[in-house]
Amino acid sequence: MPQYMDVHHGMKGITADQLKEAHDADLAVEKEEGVHFVHAWADPGSGKVYCLSEAPSAEAVKRVHERAGHPADEIHQVQLSI
Amino acid sequence: MPQYMDVHHGMKGITADQLKEAHDADLAVEKEEGVHFVHAWADPGSGKVYCLSEAPSAEAVKRVHERAGHPADEIHQVQLSI
Repeated sequence: MPQYMDVHHGMKGITADQLKEAHDADLAVEKEEGVHFVHAWADPGSGKVYCLSEAPSAEAVKRVHERAGHPADEIHQVQLSI
Repeated sequence: MPQYMDVHHGMKGITADQLKEAHDADLAVEKEEGVHFVHAWADPGSGKVYCLSEAPSAEAVKRVHERAGHPADEIHQVQLSI
């Protein structure tokens, strides 16, 4: 399954509870799109959030984040990993 | 140990061998800076490379990537992860 890294900007001040709530919202709908969100990392200072997922397409990742209420600003297929 | 996500831009066309070579160059010097690079993901299409590390400071991450010959364009402490 291809892996994707997506990035959210402008999440300054995000808390651990808010990150968990957002991640749970993704998990609640991801199966319908054949996506699995594996990890998320957040920097409350700069407002960047990075999400690693396994998904059939970037469009599927986009749809899950949109349905969960937090559209991604960037979605990149990471064909290589180490 | 704090975690950091750093981003390299402009790595269009990066190959699996080049990613491994770059990662190995980081691993070769990271201990001297007290850093450990845990994972790296690359999108040859957009040229983005994301590196996850454990490090005492962003400056230490910066120094390892500089000494390895591939300075990072962004370094963010990811205080939250899930």
